[in-house]
Amino acid sequence: MSGGRTLVRGGLVVTAAEELYADVLVEGSRIAALAAHGSACAAGWTADRTIDATGRYVVPGGVDVHTHLDLPFAGSFSADTFAGGTRAAAWGGTTTVVDFAVQTRGRPLREGLDLWHARADGRCAVDYSFHMVLTDVRDATLAEMDLLVEEGITSFRTYMTHPEALHCDDGQILRAMQRTAADGALLMVHAENGPAVDVLTARALAEGRTAPRHHAGVRPPELEAEAVHRAVRLAEVAGAPLYVVHVSARQAAEEVAAARGRGLPVYGETCPQYLHLTSEELDRPGFEGAKYVCTAPLRPPGHQEALWRALRTGDLQVVSSDHCPFDFAGQKEMGRGDFSRIPAGLPGVEHRLDLLHQGVVEGRISRRRWIELACAAPARMFGLAGRKGTLAPGADADVVVYDPSARHTLSAAAHHMDVDYSAYEGLRVTGRAETVLLRGEPVVRGGEYTGRAGQGRFLPRGASPCPH
Amino acid sequence: MSGGRTLVRGGLVVTAAEELYADVLVEGSRIAALAAHGSACAAGWTADRTIDATGRYVVPGGVDVHTHLDLPFAGSFSADTFAGGTRAAAWGGTTTVVDFAVQTRGRPLREGLDLWHARADGRCAVDYSFHMVLTDVRDATLAEMDLLVEEGITSFRTYMTHPEALHCDDGQILRAMQRTAADGALLMVHAENGPAVDVLTARALAEGRTAPRHHAGVRPPELEAEAVHRAVRLAEVAGAPLYVVHVSARQAAEEVAAARGRGLPVYGETCPQYLHLTSEELDRPGFEGAKYVCTAPLRPPGHQEALWRALRTGDLQVVSSDHCPFDFAGQKEMGRGDFSRIPAGLPGVEHRLDLLHQGVVEGRISRRRWIELACAAPARMFGLAGRKGTLAPGADADVVVYDPSARHTLSAAAHHMDVDYSAYEGLRVTGRAETVLLRGEPVVRGGEYTGRAGQGRFLPRGASPCPH
Amino acid sequence: MSGGRTLVRGGLVVTAAEELYADVLVEGSRIAALAAHGSACAAGWTADRTIDATGRYVVPGGVDVHTHLDLPFAGSFSADTFAGGTRAAAWGGTTTVVDFAVQTRGRPLREGLDLWHARADGRCAVDYSFHMVLTDVRDATLAEMDLLVEEGITSFRTYMTHPEALHCDDGQILRAMQRTAADGALLMVHAENGPAVDVLTARALAEGRTAPRHHAGVRPPELEAEAVHRAVRLAEVAGAPLYVVHVSARQAAEEVAAARGRGLPVYGETCPQYLHLTSEELDRPGFEGAKYVCTAPLRPPGHQEALWRALRTGDLQVVSSDHCPFDFAGQKEMGRGDFSRIPAGLPGVEHRLDLLHQGVVEGRISRRRWIELACAAPARMFGLAGRKGTLAPGADADVVVYDPSARHTLSAAAHHMDVDYSAYEGLRVTGRAETVLLRGEPVVRGGEYTGRAGQGRFLPRGASPCPH
Amino acid sequence: MSGGRTLVRGGLVVTAAEELYADVLVEGSRIAALAAHGSACAAGWTADRTIDATGRYVVPGGVDVHTHLDLPFAGSFSADTFAGGTRAAAWGGTTTVVDFAVQTRGRPLREGLDLWHARADGRCAVDYSFHMVLTDVRDATLAEMDLLVEEGITSFRTYMTHPEALHCDDGQILRAMQRTAADGALLMVHAENGPAVDVLTARALAEGRTAPRHHAGVRPPELEAEAVHRAVRLAEVAGAPLYVVHVSARQAAEEVAAARGRGLPVYGETCPQYLHLTSEELDRPGFEGAKYVCTAPLRPPGHQEALWRALRTGDLQVVSSDHCPFDFAGQKEMGRGDFSRIPAGLPGVEHRLDLLHQGVVEGRISRRRWIELACAAPARMFGLAGRKGTLAPGADADVVVYDPSARHTLSAAAHHMDVDYSAYEGLRVTGRAETVLLRGEPVVRGGEYTGRAGQGRFLPRGASPCPH
Repeated sequence: MSGGRTLVRGGLVVTAAEELYADVLVEGSRIAALAAHGSACAAGWTADRTIDATGRYVVPGGVDVHTHLDLPFAGSFSADTFAGGTRAAAWGGTTTVVDFAVQTRGRPLREGLDLWHARADGRCAVDYSFHMVLTDVRDATLAEMDLLVEEGITSFRTYMTHPEALHCDDGQILRAMQRTAADGALLMVHAENGPAVDVLTARALAEGRTAPRHHAGVRPPELEAEAVHRAVRLAEVAGAPLYVVHVSARQAAEEVAAARGRGLPVYGETCPQYLHLTSEELDRPGFEGAKYVCTAPLRPPGHQEALWRALRTGDLQVVSSDHCPFDFAGQKEMGRGDFSRIPAGLPGVEHRLDLLHQGVVEGRISRRRWIELACAAPARMFGLAGRKGTLAPGADADVVVYDPSARHTLSAAAHHMDVDYSAYEGLRVTGRAETVLLRGEPVVRGGEYTGRAGQGRFLPRGASPCPH
Repeated sequence: MSGGRTLVRGGLVVTAAEELYADVLVEGSRIAALAAHGSACAAGWTADRTIDATGRYVVPGGVDVHTHLDLPFAGSFSADTFAGGTRAAAWGGTTTVVDFAVQTRGRPLREGLDLWHARADGRCAVDYSFHMVLTDVRDATLAEMDLLVEEGITSFRTYMTHPEALHCDDGQILRAMQRTAADGALLMVHAENGPAVDVLTARALAEGRTAPRHHAGVRPPELEAEAVHRAVRLAEVAGAPLYVVHVSARQAAEEVAAARGRGLPVYGETCPQYLHLTSEELDRPGFEGAKYVCTAPLRPPGHQEALWRALRTGDLQVVSSDHCPFDFAGQKEMGRGDFSRIPAGLPGVEHRLDLLHQGVVEGRISRRRWIELACAAPARMFGLAGRKGTLAPGADADVVVYDPSARHTLSAAAHHMDVDYSAYEGLRVTGRAETVLLRGEPVVRGGEYTGRAGQGRFLPRGASPCPH
Repeated sequence: MSGGRTLVRGGLVVTAAEELYADVLVEGSRIAALAAHGSACAAGWTADRTIDATGRYVVPGGVDVHTHLDLPFAGSFSADTFAGGTRAAAWGGTTTVVDFAVQTRGRPLREGLDLWHARADGRCAVDYSFHMVLTDVRDATLAEMDLLVEEGITSFRTYMTHPEALHCDDGQILRAMQRTAADGALLMVHAENGPAVDVLTARALAEGRTAPRHHAGVRPPELEAEAVHRAVRLAEVAGAPLYVVHVSARQAAEEVAAARGRGLPVYGETCPQYLHLTSEELDRPGFEGAKYVCTAPLRPPGHQEALWRALRTGDLQVVSSDHCPFDFAGQKEMGRGDFSRIPAGLPGVEHRLDLLHQGVVEGRISRRRWIELACAAPARMFGLAGRKGTLAPGADADVVVYDPSARHTLSAAAHHMDVDYSAYEGLRVTGRAETVLLRGEPVVRGGEYTGRAGQGRFLPRGASPCPH
Repeated sequence: MSGGRTLVRGGLVVTAAEELYADVLVEGSRIAALAAHGSACAAGWTADRTIDATGRYVVPGGVDVHTHLDLPFAGSFSADTFAGGTRAAAWGGTTTVVDFAVQTRGRPLREGLDLWHARADGRCAVDYSFHMVLTDVRDATLAEMDLLVEEGITSFRTYMTHPEALHCDDGQILRAMQRTAADGALLMVHAENGPAVDVLTARALAEGRTAPRHHAGVRPPELEAEAVHRAVRLAEVAGAPLYVVHVSARQAAEEVAAARGRGLPVYGETCPQYLHLTSEELDRPGFEGAKYVCTAPLRPPGHQEALWRALRTGDLQVVSSDHCPFDFAGQKEMGRGDFSRIPAGLPGVEHRLDLLHQGVVEGRISRRRWIELACAAPARMFGLAGRKGTLAPGADADVVVYDPSARHTLSAAAHHMDVDYSAYEGLRVTGRAETVLLRGEPVVRGGEYTGRAGQGRFLPRGASPCPH
């Protein structure tokens, strides 16, 4: 079937730059052409398969550059496997995920990468790649970075928090940045001041403040803004680009904006949970608040407005899911009586496009910006420009026919993620992926999943951010 | 011929969002389709005329939203007519110009607009439209604004300077903004503090500082920044978008950036002269400095770096020419002994794309940003999205085949503008428009002008800025 | 008596720089010495009159550099004469007022100054001086400014609002600044964008929004911030210091702070009404809101916190009263049905020290800062350093014994100002001037007024701001 | 003699708040009184000793809150002992020094403090106190902090650099801040990112960049600004005041200013070397550059202007010496071939007042600000208000008669510090301490040192910063 021709007719094609009524012709796995709807050229097209997109948007498949599938945590794993998580992604219109392979401290990067490859290989429903998490930056690590870049792992991540297992100190981060600058790669940082968070955590626990809501209290916005500023300064010294993951606080977004205003190649990502949920969820009765424990934490209501504005003005450039699901039963519950033991993370890979589309519905962002944030920018930033995140001729035929007026309700009962709750239970949203093509093949169609495990391929990536 | 098919094969299509090797099919006056070069679809295309773009960029025709053709000044006119100026535009790859029709104080807008229509009608080599300059904002003016918007004049301009003939006071500007906010139109401002400039001018002349270089001295950056900030605050009160023309000083760009940082729909334009020339040109021996008198004035060297950075970061959004040529002989010379009588303005409509392309050559901006600044953004900002500034199927087939490695030297001897000097005399640049299509018809081809006067049409425009 | 010796014993002397237990010796009209309480030196002092200040603060007499006494307005006058207003000042611990003499447009400064001299001469209970309001800046005006500075009128004021009678345009303001820069004088500005306010006012009235609360609506913070920024830029061009009167909005204070951050000699004043009252007062039932109409207007609650912070950090430097009382009956009532006809101004000269002292009581500012803001800084800023606003030996013996724990209630029934209402009716405050010396003579003592009209003298002032 | 009366007649008394012609009467060790020169009161004064200060300034003794005397370093000690260093201080008009006692990692604070007490006891020429350097913040350390505060050690210091021996991590710093906030104490930080500096240092050495000038290269302004911002955010979380020592870079000063603008109790100190010397000194031929190695390092020329402005505007509050002298011979020379082994520090305790007075001479700061920065503010900040840094009655009679027109040349041959070079060799300055009283007793008079070792007393200090 991948040798065939598919025609998507009559929709409103929305890209990061344009809105146009155009027919999209797919030859095999690539987009062959776009033609003005009604033009002689388009009228002459025939295809093996024709999809009527009248009244729909035709948009690029989503690119989610922040997921944690099959993530080991405290003797268990995040609730979604590569098989289940990527299938849920497909349901939500996302056709590319970039997950995080993790170095075990003291061990080679290769070992961690191989492990993640083994977890994903042959199981994924959509295309995928890996960032490499550095937990131990030594000379050998730096040398390995060069090799990984050559094989298409062009982005790395360090944690400024989690001292016990993940944390790199500022010297290590600086060395990693010096290497990414030399290698045409990109360093991503989790920006919170870990040692300070640990002090506040210890005090909270010592004082009996153990409920989920204290998770946010010990991770105040100041400690996120601090770490963003620090990472920016280190990157400035290294002459390296920088990507800040899951920006959640107004103050942190302001630091990203200030760096960009000084002309630095600094980029910031936020996530749907920070746009739609607040720290008030942590106050839910019983232990329900644990469902909303993630890091960076949810913030008080005032921050959302600032994040939407930053998405609008370009101060933030990407919206990812930070999909990291843990079941309430058995997993989140590990933190009863000690919020610091609650596995941190929310499910979200399936809902990212829809939750961001609410910003279009509510007039917060334009349609073009929606696609820029969810598809084009993440692809461009992570070495996939021209292949993913766009509907340009020559690109992979990852195409979503999106019904902008479909109303549906998010819930654990309805979603396709392998997790026992929804962080958005009962939320009514407008807009939904109707048909999803992965490199020309339909993986979701007419409310049915038509893909298969292993259909998704590993994506070696180019220089990051893409040089144009 | 406009019923025929044209095929542009083998080039690197560069738009504001993408770079791709694609063939471009034109049916009649519109772009019908883009297909991946080498795809079966593209291979099957035939056409009446095929242009080989191998080794070339294929880009949208330029959109220059700031020209002054046939502008009356002190009993004379700016040196380029609509015929000559738009022909020069075509030579430089610009296929749309938006000029300024001017209200005579005390007279209806209609009268001024009709006068400019009469000057342009049947003479233009490329498509054109008008902004309307308000010099007298009264109830009747506001009522007329509604009518003009309905007929596609969706942008207006006020001067915060030139008290004698053009200046509007802050109350008038606020009223105009209230109206543009209601009408879906855009107010452009020339932001310099006119009364303060006049005080400094009078003092300079009284003290015998009469040479061209004093033109810049009496218009310091502070007075540009002041006026930008004032216009921003008035727009904030009116709830109106704002477009600041010819931003020349670092401080002024900072005010635009600060407003945008607060989330306001404020936009700024700069011009090639502020990116390539400095106020040192005004010190040229004899009266040569007069050639470089324009308002806002050229600035000392440090400002250029700030402007390039603002273009890169998005703090400024558009590059226009502010083409307003006056012959040195007879016109600029009127200001001998009194810089304030030098007609202010530089020729530039022909060189805008090339001068901005130097930023690509020098690594200051990406190719995509080049097209965004010179084509896509001005079109989007002024109600021409989907028609101009893009190569999307359905858009007008204004296509430029651009040779990125052609070296040539700017000079009065070589340029096509009707003015007796070049502000860039002797400057070597790399990159040049080779073939230019206007709505599917070649107007420049193989070093020949193949268009004709009257080929350019008036463009009624939509809401400004375009709502998506 | 002015030849005698007065001794103030046992109090806590508070100045802008120190707090110390010291006895204060007055010889004639001057402070002769301060000695540590209990020192041999102090123990040896004898005096004609000894005031026991045990348990009290001993502070300099207040310096109020912003009053409008006997101000003509719409055929009437502000409710307090120089006699009554200065007597009320004395009651409140203020021993120096600087009022505004106003140029009549088209007439010499001298004429206006003479008129104000005539109104004040022989009537004042405390020392006084004048700023000169410029309403018409021409060559002759500038020449007169030199003369006035020579005779001790070293500060001038322009209005950026009130186009009908007071407004100067930016060119006039710039010329005035050039002159103050040359003359060692200081320009004060009323910073609101007058023409824009007039547009909003006309629209409000045309739409039937005529109640007092709309007074604030047509003078939004943006228009105050705008004018502050404009005045700063003009001062920057002129190389002149600048003093912004009655800063009321957070955004305006931020502009003052930004200018200071750039190193410019820019100063800002706020008033007790902006610290204690909000625009909610304008919503009082009936026409009561008119009592709170002043310009700049009262602001919504959030602004107070910003102003207190600016006083604390030094972003604002002076607290004046802007005392400009109008009776509710007969005067404020002129604006029934048209808020723009309500005479703008509040009574306050009597309560300034007490209202600012509440900031001490509430922990917002230190005692030293209280004295800096209300006494030392205004004296220093307006050419009275070493004479007023301090308890240093050699200074005028304007001494206030202040009871920091006296509780009293502000009300029209209790105050000494000649106005039929209090803007603070019913407000309980802590702290009150108990004894007030003017150049060594008690004018308030033991709850009695012991001064006399004409006791206050005109103060020619030095360079402004004082050069050290 | 300390029971006697001293009279300082006829000088211009300059304090942080005032300039006045006053006679100063000392009774025993305290200032008893100030009286206006020529007043009857002053005329009646008699004394055991009268100093004629005609034509001189009379100012408070300097307060230098940043010295390192007898500091152990790499098996040696800083070149000045408490005896020699404090004698040099006296020569320069400084009558109070606050030195740094250092905790040995793993040992009690008490042990370090006792050691420093032993070094200073009975040796000092001027009054002295200690800050306590924390190198190891554990529960026991926190408990000891309470005790030290009770005995008058009310300020602590942490290093964000020097990982090998001094560095505290962010968690330790936060805990220390939580304690100072509770204890009414003040945390001082050395703000440079130590781990990042170490990375740059290792790379420089590995690449053969070993000369003194590379000391500055591996400590760029960004890493100072970073650490300032980090300390500010930690203090914000702790609700603690913060004092940043030796601010040297424009960007670091901007971070202090930004924090203050947000209303935080953040304070910054700079030093004369950053105001008078630049990193160009490090390029001196041979190994001469080593004389100028200090941390934070000297900066390129542009930074000085920013620091002077910050001193003028109040963005920085204190000027200390950071006196930490090492002989060129034998000590600085340890770093030949490896800049990282050069003992870092400059001599300066003797010249601080004179070097800052140059700012007065050059019109950069006022006389009052000179005294504020060098005397009053450091006293107030470190719990000595009312006793030191002022000439108020009741304060310690630390009085300097300063000749503002004395010209002299700084040089190793002429200075009194025990170090074999001067960082200001050959610099001509104007102004010099002529007579210095320490608690009423002359320690320098007529070009002779008249004090004695042990005359200086330990100063237990109050809450820091002083609460008013």
